[in-house]
Amino acid sequence: MKIPELAELRVSLDWVDDHLEVIDQTRLPTDLVTLRLETVAAVVEAIQRLRVRGAPALGACGALGLVVGLDEHRPATAEEARALLDGLAQRIGSARPTAVNLGWAARRVRDAAVAGGDTAEIRRLALAEALAIVAEDRQACQLIGEHGARELEHVHRILTHCNTGRLATTGWGTALAVVYTLAAGGAPVEVLATETRPLLQGARLTAWELADAGVPVRLLADGAAASALAAGMVDAVVVGADRIAANGDTANKIGTYGHAVAAQAAGIPFYVAAPLSTVDLGTASGAGIVIEERDADELRAVQGAPTAPPSVEVWNPAFDVTPHALVTALITEAGVLRPPLARTIAAALRGTGNGTARAD
Amino acid sequence: MKIPELAELRVSLDWVDDHLEVIDQTRLPTDLVTLRLETVAAVVEAIQRLRVRGAPALGACGALGLVVGLDEHRPATAEEARALLDGLAQRIGSARPTAVNLGWAARRVRDAAVAGGDTAEIRRLALAEALAIVAEDRQACQLIGEHGARELEHVHRILTHCNTGRLATTGWGTALAVVYTLAAGGAPVEVLATETRPLLQGARLTAWELADAGVPVRLLADGAAASALAAGMVDAVVVGADRIAANGDTANKIGTYGHAVAAQAAGIPFYVAAPLSTVDLGTASGAGIVIEERDADELRAVQGAPTAPPSVEVWNPAFDVTPHALVTALITEAGVLRPPLARTIAAALRGTGNGTARAD
Repeated sequence: MKIPELAELRVSLDWVDDHLEVIDQTRLPTDLVTLRLETVAAVVEAIQRLRVRGAPALGACGALGLVVGLDEHRPATAEEARALLDGLAQRIGSARPTAVNLGWAARRVRDAAVAGGDTAEIRRLALAEALAIVAEDRQACQLIGEHGARELEHVHRILTHCNTGRLATTGWGTALAVVYTLAAGGAPVEVLATETRPLLQGARLTAWELADAGVPVRLLADGAAASALAAGMVDAVVVGADRIAANGDTANKIGTYGHAVAAQAAGIPFYVAAPLSTVDLGTASGAGIVIEERDADELRAVQGAPTAPPSVEVWNPAFDVTPHALVTALITEAGVLRPPLARTIAAALRGTGNGTARAD
Repeated sequence: MKIPELAELRVSLDWVDDHLEVIDQTRLPTDLVTLRLETVAAVVEAIQRLRVRGAPALGACGALGLVVGLDEHRPATAEEARALLDGLAQRIGSARPTAVNLGWAARRVRDAAVAGGDTAEIRRLALAEALAIVAEDRQACQLIGEHGARELEHVHRILTHCNTGRLATTGWGTALAVVYTLAAGGAPVEVLATETRPLLQGARLTAWELADAGVPVRLLADGAAASALAAGMVDAVVVGADRIAANGDTANKIGTYGHAVAAQAAGIPFYVAAPLSTVDLGTASGAGIVIEERDADELRAVQGAPTAPPSVEVWNPAFDVTPHALVTALITEAGVLRPPLARTIAAALRGTGNGTARAD
């Protein structure tokens, strides 16, 4: 199999001709629409309406959003610019309260930029820091892909959940970076992608981006994954992570835990691919992770078409927790971390100095 | 809790004023529309378009469909009536090839009716046999409910999958009969209903019929069930069955097996509620059950709205197989059958003489 270079493919967002351009993910898979975001209001709207989503992509969007704000408001003095950056970091950083990367990236750009002596230097520092965040994300994706492809060298059939690829990051992705790297190396890889109710990121986004890159993909209902695992249709499960506790318990998109249980029952390895910034050392185990419940209407209708009685009660958790005992290994930019995960995660974080930003 | 009597509630279909009336299940939950089916073409269309679905309801619909055919064509002689019944049994009985109950019920009505000496007697015998099939189904539902309610006397929170209630049968249902019987007895029962992709029978039908009867119900994504089980939100899982092999391996709507694995991991009992006619003694184990794959478009769109790239490859099995080792017990009209299921199923079938019709 041969797939294009990353430079020839679309990622969630990029800085193009000194402007922020994002793919409007709410229009996929029907339409591929690129938006140029030239105001802070447009950046915030894109984040809140999930036109941009995925933790690493949100961080990059928030970081570049501060530069957009400087360009929109053109502060006259360094003092005005610093005050503006404070406000922007607050407004953009809290556009989605549960997106930790967003606030972290916005603060990082502000902190770097306020050191500038005049408005031009402040703008230059802000852009440099934002582009550094993008470059670090792209680099982490690349390394996750390389470590994962080495680990899964003999794996051809991968089951994944949700979207963890070019649309969730500014690079190859996390779990999907492993897939892309295997494919780029010539392996006959194929992906079983669960549709991922309620928001259908697997059906709408993963199926689209893999097909777009020429990687064979088959879509299945979330409820069919256990059956695919039992039937011997899968060599390995590889998923991303929203947050990883210090002991390796992993919070990820709702449905992940069920796949992990079914993989164990079928004797199939279950990998979590994520940058070390996903590790939250301040959370000892999955028991400490608060499960966000989302709007009931996500289960009462699909794309506006009613699918249930309009007033039915709903339980709609955004993610679930997979206990570390079900995780074969973590694939990170620092390498493949194996059980006991509490120990290997701590060692990896000491080695890189990464991740501790999330420990508060 | 107090719920209405069955006579005050709607079931999938009934013989009303000497006509066949069915609820159009494709219109639920948005509209409650009753159709009077007065031609064979209308009966076949209702079956093929899933306006009527659920194995017991299909059997009843097919049986009464033969009477509809006699009334539509008004044969002049007994000989004409018998030839007509042969054709009707063939046409209606094969309207959905995989619906075993349909062919079985149609043949049963034909075989009973052809013994009549004149057209009036033939019509009378056909109607009597069709109504006997309805009455037997209703009675089996009632007994399943009673046995199940006794078994699950102390269970309040039940997770179920797909639709196995009044809309799938002509009575209280199978798995949902257990729920209704517990509720009618005053137990504070509540149901977690999985939406059941791809055809959303849980969201569209189970949520509607439980709310309609006043039974508390909460809807969740299929992928959230494992999490609900792990979180201690469920006392027992109760599902129906499409086919049960001689050893107790159970084929049911896709997604069931995953719930069974997650229930075992959480130490929560997993029950299958079904009439003995669901047992297929001709199939030794689940390995012998052929898995029907359905149309890819079921996963490419929901209610007509696109949810995936239009040409994406799809794996869309209609059902999966839960190994008997994961089944706590079968709840049947003959009582609760416990492991070893191969032995208790065989004993139950010897006791009633039922089920062997499905052994071919």
